[in-house]
Amino acid sequence: VSIESHFKEIDGGVCAPAGFLASGVAAGIKKPGSPKLDCALVVSDRTATAAGAFTKNVLKSPPTKWTEGVCIRGEARAVFLNSGNANAVTGTKGAEDAQRIAECVSGPLGFPITQVAVLSTGVIGVLLPMDRVEQGIANCIPALSTSGAADAATAIMTTDLVKKEMALEVPLSGGTVRIGAMAKGSGMIRPDMATMFCIITSDAQIDADVLKPMIRTCVEASFNSICVDNDMSTSDAVVCLCNGASGVAVQPGTADADLFESALRRVCIHMAQWLVRDGEGATKFVEINVSGAETDVDAKTMARSVAESQLCKTAFAGEDANWGRIACAVGYAGVGFEPERLCVSIGGLEVLYEGLPTGYAEAEAAAIMKQHDIRIDIKVGDGPGKATFWTSDLTHQYVSINADYRT
Amino acid sequence: VSIESHFKEIDGGVCAPAGFLASGVAAGIKKPGSPKLDCALVVSDRTATAAGAFTKNVLKSPPTKWTEGVCIRGEARAVFLNSGNANAVTGTKGAEDAQRIAECVSGPLGFPITQVAVLSTGVIGVLLPMDRVEQGIANCIPALSTSGAADAATAIMTTDLVKKEMALEVPLSGGTVRIGAMAKGSGMIRPDMATMFCIITSDAQIDADVLKPMIRTCVEASFNSICVDNDMSTSDAVVCLCNGASGVAVQPGTADADLFESALRRVCIHMAQWLVRDGEGATKFVEINVSGAETDVDAKTMARSVAESQLCKTAFAGEDANWGRIACAVGYAGVGFEPERLCVSIGGLEVLYEGLPTGYAEAEAAAIMKQHDIRIDIKVGDGPGKATFWTSDLTHQYVSINADYRT
Repeated sequence: VSIESHFKEIDGGVCAPAGFLASGVAAGIKKPGSPKLDCALVVSDRTATAAGAFTKNVLKSPPTKWTEGVCIRGEARAVFLNSGNANAVTGTKGAEDAQRIAECVSGPLGFPITQVAVLSTGVIGVLLPMDRVEQGIANCIPALSTSGAADAATAIMTTDLVKKEMALEVPLSGGTVRIGAMAKGSGMIRPDMATMFCIITSDAQIDADVLKPMIRTCVEASFNSICVDNDMSTSDAVVCLCNGASGVAVQPGTADADLFESALRRVCIHMAQWLVRDGEGATKFVEINVSGAETDVDAKTMARSVAESQLCKTAFAGEDANWGRIACAVGYAGVGFEPERLCVSIGGLEVLYEGLPTGYAEAEAAAIMKQHDIRIDIKVGDGPGKATFWTSDLTHQYVSINADYRT
Repeated sequence: VSIESHFKEIDGGVCAPAGFLASGVAAGIKKPGSPKLDCALVVSDRTATAAGAFTKNVLKSPPTKWTEGVCIRGEARAVFLNSGNANAVTGTKGAEDAQRIAECVSGPLGFPITQVAVLSTGVIGVLLPMDRVEQGIANCIPALSTSGAADAATAIMTTDLVKKEMALEVPLSGGTVRIGAMAKGSGMIRPDMATMFCIITSDAQIDADVLKPMIRTCVEASFNSICVDNDMSTSDAVVCLCNGASGVAVQPGTADADLFESALRRVCIHMAQWLVRDGEGATKFVEINVSGAETDVDAKTMARSVAESQLCKTAFAGEDANWGRIACAVGYAGVGFEPERLCVSIGGLEVLYEGLPTGYAEAEAAAIMKQHDIRIDIKVGDGPGKATFWTSDLTHQYVSINADYRT
């Protein structure tokens, strides 16, 4: 029985853990007067420990910087999010607006302003319509409820086709805790970070100092192991709040801690894969495994090179088992290996063995490429390094979505 | 009067310089029985000094390795090229085939085998049809002539829509020399190297040790400053042959050497830009200038980040002045700068000034984006570093070409 079979999927998204309320409202930020939800609020009934991971873009947006501060201090009561406008490349006024949002949430609710995370996603370089945002916040607060998770998850969508939320029950030695999550993201998806948010809630009781390295590890194996295209956003973040409402503590260095981290990782990987499955224009979900490298980092570099290759991604779209492009992308990843050790399998069919084509049947390869989910296994030697990366295909639809985004 | 006005464009491609012959024939390598030219031969009537630049892919193809050896030794009499099959990821047999091609050229012509460069481009992972290749060589040799450059330039085309050749006259103090060139390349185009060939011929007399650093510098400013997509090929090369047939010597450290290098650079940049203009599916030609960086290398890293961004390239395709994506790509290039110093202009229209949108008229920006050639100027500070990069847009047609390449 794998450790993961301990977890049970439950309903309720970010509100599944005890003590969390959420809401989502339409404030006309996406488009004045539109009924589309675009403001979300997630609130804990007590102070939660907080940890996060953030874009490394030099042009990190004002709300991202603000929220990074909240997570560094490690305590939060609420997360406010809007879609339709990223409040990025907006200078001093953008920073004032981010802080004003935190004030508008913390004031009425009686929280310290420093415990309100703020995240914005959407178009870059346009000031937020603060009158509408403030009205959105004012409407979010009375709408807060334990059944508001779905509205919140809907309100953060941009080009996403489906809302993304999940929750798990995790049985620990002292009792059951719950983990909930919602995410958005579809394009501008690549490591460090994508144009994505993932808000994770839990009623476990855990110190911020214990939670922070867990989040780092989980993000590395999930949101930092996916791509849809090759762009890194200015805005985006994973934020995890653990409020302890279950009364069940997770102590560092225990089996409970391992189990909790494993559940967190499962949530992160599931949500990350979902972003790829709902990737802009995506018709394929491709898993790329690299093994036999000298280190895990080398393996990930090679897996990522394939995952980001436009020629591999167009070949996936065309259902073409063009392993030459896969081998080629491994070859230019910037990591040395012996070409005569390279093996590539597509959907379990070995197409390249120790540097030479195997003479596989093209019809068999073609049948594999017709599937929606495709697994590619790449072996580059006998080293212990391995990694997995997930990617989508590159389609006409991706081009259509992004050529017409602003207009 | 700029130094470049000294150069006169002339006809004749790689045969414009004295002492060069060329030919191109159809050998059925692209498709058995097809009348499409796919074998090219360029020959000098005397031993030429040789210099080259080659892909850095670990899976560098056998012919590329062979030709790198020729250029390291620095002497060549001939270059044989085929399209339709890259002879890459073909193991020991591929290496034997590359050498066999050199033999088939050197034997009948009486050259040392070590002076025959061999280049192959096309599909990866399939052995060359050597019977057809040998017949192609046998037909290329009697077809050699001083008017064969156009056939040779045609024979190396793959997804190129137009053949690419040019020639210049360069007046030096001791007399006039000529530089000719032909190139192929349209997709899999990025630095170090693209799926491209550029063969440069000259009748100048110049030592290999003087020529080699010139080629390195020129390639850096041209073929290493372009992208169409983000893939680096297994196969490809710039090879320059200077046979001295003009009787005019280029001595290092002289004004003549500067002028000759300047002409070489002009040829390389012209050919590199042509690859981008004929980029797979391209409808736009975009020049990206970055200035004010601390070093030229930093500036080039930032320019390249914009040039390779799928979101910028789809915005170009959609004629959308989405400067937010441009700023964003500068921000994730991995080079530090102060966001409040960032300025961006599109076609001379300032859209971002010192970190803030300028309030430009969208109609004016839209008119600029409708042009075929678009210039983007990015200023990141007051440093001396600057660089220029050229890129195409990312269109539906790019996806169509590459989704269906093998099938």
